[in-house]
Amino acid sequence: MKILVSGGAGYIGSHTVIQLVAAGYDVVIVDNFSNSHPTVLGRLESLTGTPITLHSFDLCDHDKTEHLFASEHFDGVIHFAGHKAVGESVEKPLDYYENNLVSTFSLVRAMQKYDVDKLVFSSSATVYGEDQAGATEDRRTYATNPYGWTKVMQEQILRDVAVARPQMRFALLRYFNPVGAHPSGTIGEDPSGIPNNLVPYIAQVAVGKRDKLLVFGDDYDTVDGTGVRDYIHVEDLAAGHIAALKALEDTDEAVHTWNLGSGHGTSVLEMLRAFERAVGRELPYEVVARRPGDIATSYADPSKANRELGWRTKRSVDEMAADTWRWQSQNPRGFAG
Amino acid sequence: MKILVSGGAGYIGSHTVIQLVAAGYDVVIVDNFSNSHPTVLGRLESLTGTPITLHSFDLCDHDKTEHLFASEHFDGVIHFAGHKAVGESVEKPLDYYENNLVSTFSLVRAMQKYDVDKLVFSSSATVYGEDQAGATEDRRTYATNPYGWTKVMQEQILRDVAVARPQMRFALLRYFNPVGAHPSGTIGEDPSGIPNNLVPYIAQVAVGKRDKLLVFGDDYDTVDGTGVRDYIHVEDLAAGHIAALKALEDTDEAVHTWNLGSGHGTSVLEMLRAFERAVGRELPYEVVARRPGDIATSYADPSKANRELGWRTKRSVDEMAADTWRWQSQNPRGFAG
Repeated sequence: MKILVSGGAGYIGSHTVIQLVAAGYDVVIVDNFSNSHPTVLGRLESLTGTPITLHSFDLCDHDKTEHLFASEHFDGVIHFAGHKAVGESVEKPLDYYENNLVSTFSLVRAMQKYDVDKLVFSSSATVYGEDQAGATEDRRTYATNPYGWTKVMQEQILRDVAVARPQMRFALLRYFNPVGAHPSGTIGEDPSGIPNNLVPYIAQVAVGKRDKLLVFGDDYDTVDGTGVRDYIHVEDLAAGHIAALKALEDTDEAVHTWNLGSGHGTSVLEMLRAFERAVGRELPYEVVARRPGDIATSYADPSKANRELGWRTKRSVDEMAADTWRWQSQNPRGFAG
Repeated sequence: MKILVSGGAGYIGSHTVIQLVAAGYDVVIVDNFSNSHPTVLGRLESLTGTPITLHSFDLCDHDKTEHLFASEHFDGVIHFAGHKAVGESVEKPLDYYENNLVSTFSLVRAMQKYDVDKLVFSSSATVYGEDQAGATEDRRTYATNPYGWTKVMQEQILRDVAVARPQMRFALLRYFNPVGAHPSGTIGEDPSGIPNNLVPYIAQVAVGKRDKLLVFGDDYDTVDGTGVRDYIHVEDLAAGHIAALKALEDTDEAVHTWNLGSGHGTSVLEMLRAFERAVGRELPYEVVARRPGDIATSYADPSKANRELGWRTKRSVDEMAADTWRWQSQNPRGFAG
């Protein structure tokens, strides 16, 4: 079985590639390195012991995408590629809508033309808007920023394609907050610029790249006043993709939607403490004002994925911190280092 | 003031062009004739007594769109262009999403690059999903078919662009059911194939092109059991566009959303009777099963447009029927005749 992984050089994509190879799939990556680094390829080949084919182009290019599908047959696609920074999406909405939607148009058109029927799609808990805590998959979706809307729209487009092409199978995976890194410490999250997310930010504080953690508000109605999120180890998340892909191989239902999270919330300060345990020293932080748009609490109801995929998260917050720290301390400047 | 009218050769576009010229605007049309006929141009020139510039290309072509904006300056855009058949959108969702979204991306990119700030956009009551009756503009939007979703998505994209580019001004016009024709009888709706909408269908029955009207269900909870819709004369609708465009010239608010409808519902049989009065004879019809997805009742709450635009519908159901009949009887084969 040969699987095309779009955005396979990215954070979640690269971790999933390793598990795909381990599960016996042939993997082909397409990535334009708009938010990833070619260095990851060599590391993936070392970790898997396998040469991995990479095509480096922008999926928004219909002709190149079609040419790829014309030149080799895929049994399925996992579609990670897409812009993903909330703040940037507010500043450059048209870039987000155009990139994320047109790449999906291009990919699905090529799939239709060359009879590739299975697609696993990277969606997000952001499709639950401000009502993420405990949301189940049947909720009507909406978003609070352009990035989130691209996910809402891509999901809707895929659902409508499934009606018109009933032989196709789609898994819409709604991620909560992916963190952690491969236990080898050789691949991990490598955000460009100032990290938008908590764990990469803490990691950069721990490695001395940032002065201190800024905690945005400690007066939320939560365990310690700081924001609570459902963090999922990227290794658990990658395993969810393999499970979803296998589920699509044997189902009569065209579209499956699954929340991928632990079901448990962790506060900012709880995550900071876990990181301090991993690093072995205290890390500086400062409480500042809330960020507009932030919600108090988000955690998954992953029971549908638990039940239907036989999948659940296995890795603790301490493992998330320890694996992130291993990656960050071995690669203080990320893949460029 | 020079206005670019996308889809200006189409049904609502062509009627709006006449009123734009009458109001003193210079008009430039861009239309790819995917669902319209070049013949309309000569008729528009006769009716307005003015030569009208036409560019014939697909707005999805970014390069051609940008070239147009580079070659002349526009003071505003009215964006009618788009696929609009609900049933076809279910069969070809990707065509609908790609055409309607990419043309909007292309148009708005060109507007941003060449500092064109005002856009009047053709939205639809379909963004109220199944809850159209009396819906006000602040309702959270959703749709029940891909065509409707393209409108929901285009509205959201424009709202987000407005946040990023606060100098831009957008009018989102949610049409109810446009019918009727120019009183001259020389332009009107010319659907290709079997009409999807009631009034063109009745008109084709009246002119002998179809055997009888099929009435889809007479057991709805309405005045006579048949479906009730808010019909708006295309001349009133065109006037709403002129009013919206003028409103954008003098407002501090970036995005305005207005329902354009009469506020009154008319049943299928009531419209049939009005048509019979216009034609002067009875027209054959047969009641058949409900169509899946049809709702019982839809009518606008146009009070926001009435108040803020000083605009309201003026033309009766009898005028809608009479003007449609004049157009259809003078042009039994539409523009191709």
